[in-house]
Amino acid sequence: MDNKLNSAEERQPAPTLANSWSTKQDAVSSKNDRTKAVGFVLVHAGAGYHSESKAKEYKHVCKRACQRAVDRLKAGALAVEAVAAALVELESLTQSCPSQDSPFTNAGMGSNLNLKGEIECDASIMDGKSLHYGAVGAISGIKNPVLVANRLLSEAQKGKLSAGRIPPCFLVGRGAHDWAVSHGIPPCPSDKMATKFSLSAYKRNKHKMELAEKMDSGFKQTKRRRQSSENEEVSGCLDTVGAIVVDQEGNVAAAVSSGGLAMKHSGRVGQAAHYGCGCWAENACNVNPYSTAVSTSGSPFLANEDCVLGGVIVLRGCRCVEAQPSQDIQAILVEFLWSHTTESMCIGYMSAQDGKAKTHISRLPPGAVAGQSLAIEGGVCRLVSTAD
Amino acid sequence: MDNKLNSAEERQPAPTLANSWSTKQDAVSSKNDRTKAVGFVLVHAGAGYHSESKAKEYKHVCKRACQRAVDRLKAGALAVEAVAAALVELESLTQSCPSQDSPFTNAGMGSNLNLKGEIECDASIMDGKSLHYGAVGAISGIKNPVLVANRLLSEAQKGKLSAGRIPPCFLVGRGAHDWAVSHGIPPCPSDKMATKFSLSAYKRNKHKMELAEKMDSGFKQTKRRRQSSENEEVSGCLDTVGAIVVDQEGNVAAAVSSGGLAMKHSGRVGQAAHYGCGCWAENACNVNPYSTAVSTSGSPFLANEDCVLGGVIVLRGCRCVEAQPSQDIQAILVEFLWSHTTESMCIGYMSAQDGKAKTHISRLPPGAVAGQSLAIEGGVCRLVSTAD
Repeated sequence: MDNKLNSAEERQPAPTLANSWSTKQDAVSSKNDRTKAVGFVLVHAGAGYHSESKAKEYKHVCKRACQRAVDRLKAGALAVEAVAAALVELESLTQSCPSQDSPFTNAGMGSNLNLKGEIECDASIMDGKSLHYGAVGAISGIKNPVLVANRLLSEAQKGKLSAGRIPPCFLVGRGAHDWAVSHGIPPCPSDKMATKFSLSAYKRNKHKMELAEKMDSGFKQTKRRRQSSENEEVSGCLDTVGAIVVDQEGNVAAAVSSGGLAMKHSGRVGQAAHYGCGCWAENACNVNPYSTAVSTSGSPFLANEDCVLGGVIVLRGCRCVEAQPSQDIQAILVEFLWSHTTESMCIGYMSAQDGKAKTHISRLPPGAVAGQSLAIEGGVCRLVSTAD
Repeated sequence: MDNKLNSAEERQPAPTLANSWSTKQDAVSSKNDRTKAVGFVLVHAGAGYHSESKAKEYKHVCKRACQRAVDRLKAGALAVEAVAAALVELESLTQSCPSQDSPFTNAGMGSNLNLKGEIECDASIMDGKSLHYGAVGAISGIKNPVLVANRLLSEAQKGKLSAGRIPPCFLVGRGAHDWAVSHGIPPCPSDKMATKFSLSAYKRNKHKMELAEKMDSGFKQTKRRRQSSENEEVSGCLDTVGAIVVDQEGNVAAAVSSGGLAMKHSGRVGQAAHYGCGCWAENACNVNPYSTAVSTSGSPFLANEDCVLGGVIVLRGCRCVEAQPSQDIQAILVEFLWSHTTESMCIGYMSAQDGKAKTHISRLPPGAVAGQSLAIEGGVCRLVSTAD
């Protein structure tokens, strides 16, 4: 693998990132605005392949998701609430899209269908302040799986249940659905979860599978299953979505949501729901000055794949040491990056001080091979908050 | 927490462990036996509380599990097959027990019942050679959940499914059950999964919950749920079971199985099924001379519990450097330990060179407080194999 991680430090932030930088002068001028609610959000709408023709639409999703998170931050929400708001937007894309035949993300409504023609979603969220974690796996009939994960997290933060029972942090399948409904999250009929696009992809994939199995039947005696050729592969959006946030107090949070692989077995849970795999968030503490948040997307972990397709967004926040420290100005330095081995990855980012989100479709360099090369880019943002 | 980890190196292996040591003299004598199939297994039948009155029965389970693994190793099985065999024995305890009202482990049959009065189990297994992993979560109606996890692992090792689909490594709920049955693992009717003991515990716990909820109803307006007092806590066996194995080639494997918390919400998946949480196994490689296998049991991870109750078994294997290297004698040095913050932990271990397993109920030192103190013990075993 052409690992370019080492070059990250040398790399200057891309010109498009320059606007997200807050210089010391900015900080002083923003003092006049009495900016209280600052924060930063980085989202991605999938690591996979993003056609040029739909670039505008992908970017639009990211922009809306960033705006949602920033709106919440400005309203005084903590990082974990803001990250959930961004995810809902990324999951709900098909709802806001007038033509239902263009779902752009494989999360929530319009997700890939499984072998039985059903949608089963995975999602998780982590709060860097409490280190609490909430996740759902193989959940059906819920428009926004991340809301269930978030509710599990917030319920767990309330303490024990009656008779000293420990509240759940990871629920799957029917149990997850029933818990969500009993906690006021409305169910969504299965036929409304699928879109024209996801249904026609299912039919196409089913046909491919039947053809492939017919061809395979001649090889039944071979000990090892042959690797299928490219044109037999079932296809689907691989577009897991994710977001990471740092709020004005320096709290971080991360979330991820995915419809999983097309034509997966019913009950399959992917990395988006796995503790420590789909996302991670951890505030700075006495022994570590950095807050960190990560959200991943990609191939099944640890499988012996020749070609590992995935993407990641990462941020690291640290309180700035000011030349002239002042009690009423606090600054957090946020370093952020995105990286992928897929052909492309659509990202967006925004600080609460920005007027609007910046979006970008990151692509592997010309000639680079997906799964064998790595693209990595990032930037720095300085968040300033002033006291009343 | 009274962390005694640092004292592990100074601690001499307990006298009961002395028999598991193979000195160089042993190695030479075993050469005459043409010992080909060597290996080592360490199991535990739960970290929790083990009454003196039932000590003999707990130890017996561990002994049988060790024997099963060693039988497989002697028959030439790899570590992963041997560890699965040990787990089946630990899960199946109630089957082999004439009086069905004494289930000793909370895994497979006789597990804790959930809120709805059903048994839903978690299990996972990892092969240190391939780093493949198989897991099931919230699976019902299967006697030995670890067999499903193991089958997922072995199916994944065969490569891709038709049309290039990636095989699942983690299945939950109904989907997991159906996959198991379609792969020849027989279903077990729900009413046969529960035992007299687990059913009466369910009734007792349900009564406690109803009482507690009645009492709580007066506090509905309080913002934070109060911590329940000790005598209201629902109880169940906390006895997750686990095993770790190293085989004659130095391959390691680990597995874990649990019925989860008593009165848990349907669909709850615990750490036994979580990738990287319940078990881990990783063979030595070019950059790391040690093979490692771990299996854990315990409290929900990362919860802000005042008192963290858990246990772990660990082994580390390394090829020995012989004073007079010989091509037909290969030796592996195995260091192993068990540790727990619970009152007690029942363990067993055996090398293929031993006549029978050694068992032990490890207890916290007198005066130590469960959840706030740590017991740690271990030993060393030298495995020798001679070539034909």
